[in-house]
Amino acid sequence: MSKHDVKRLLVNYKTLEEFQNFKEIGVQELSMKEELEENIIENDSESPFYGIYYGDRLVARMCLYKIDSKFDFYFDPPQNYLELWKLEVLEPYRELGFGETLVNYAKSFDLPVKTNARQRSDYFWEKMNFEPVTYNPDRDRGENPYVWYPEGVQAQEQSETESSLAPE
Amino acid sequence: MSKHDVKRLLVNYKTLEEFQNFKEIGVQELSMKEELEENIIENDSESPFYGIYYGDRLVARMCLYKIDSKFDFYFDPPQNYLELWKLEVLEPYRELGFGETLVNYAKSFDLPVKTNARQRSDYFWEKMNFEPVTYNPDRDRGENPYVWYPEGVQAQEQSETESSLAPE
Repeated sequence: MSKHDVKRLLVNYKTLEEFQNFKEIGVQELSMKEELEENIIENDSESPFYGIYYGDRLVARMCLYKIDSKFDFYFDPPQNYLELWKLEVLEPYRELGFGETLVNYAKSFDLPVKTNARQRSDYFWEKMNFEPVTYNPDRDRGENPYVWYPEGVQAQEQSETESSLAPE
Repeated sequence: MSKHDVKRLLVNYKTLEEFQNFKEIGVQELSMKEELEENIIENDSESPFYGIYYGDRLVARMCLYKIDSKFDFYFDPPQNYLELWKLEVLEPYRELGFGETLVNYAKSFDLPVKTNARQRSDYFWEKMNFEPVTYNPDRDRGENPYVWYPEGVQAQEQSETESSLAPE
């Protein structure tokens, strides 16, 4: 196993400490910490995070979540798909391909993948063969969704929505 | 009408030009521009955006979207609620209460309000009487949801989820 393999991250205090180096720390990580402290989840249980270690240091990570087909409003035919978020590579380790490695890992499950692309990251996602979707405010609610279609999968047709759903 | 009133923004080229000053420009604004150019929506039709003008200049805005009760996974009893996003005040006009004015306007519809709080904005939302929710990865998918409960409304009980939905 090379030192740049993608690893499933385990929920433990070491992982949570490594997470502190990333910008996108939110309620999800806090929730993991609380569950660990209160013994709601076991130490070293599997998290939905995947990461790349450079030596001993976690330098890149992403979160990957399987969404059930009954909540699939993006793909045709409707199916289980992966939601990818919190893709982040630590500053000194950028431009080394770690982001690409993680995204390719997500694609290797051969399920459709959906992400919410950050400002000015369109170039990256298009390089990774993701495509923007036709914006549907009811479904996307301000997100900037990019999706990757495995072979045989296409965009789900969206039904017409009212021109304005904002309150009167 | 005082010059700091909240106004429903109309979809036209002037509004779209004003939007260029804001950081959070995404697929939603691009979509409005395309629909305007292709005459899919009429000039001066109502947008889901609300804003505050300082003189002639749009200096603060938010997007407000009514979510149908059948998609309500946050409130008890389940009901129509407002999703608030793209709340942003232009840099030189911060700390003047425009953000508060917009959020209070959202609350004035007397529907529950949900937002995805950005990093380090917890203080602001708590000051506005919003509360963080108990994180549910299936529902929240990496978001940092803050909600405002009108009187008589409370948090929706979440059913237990599998400990890990990430792919094997």
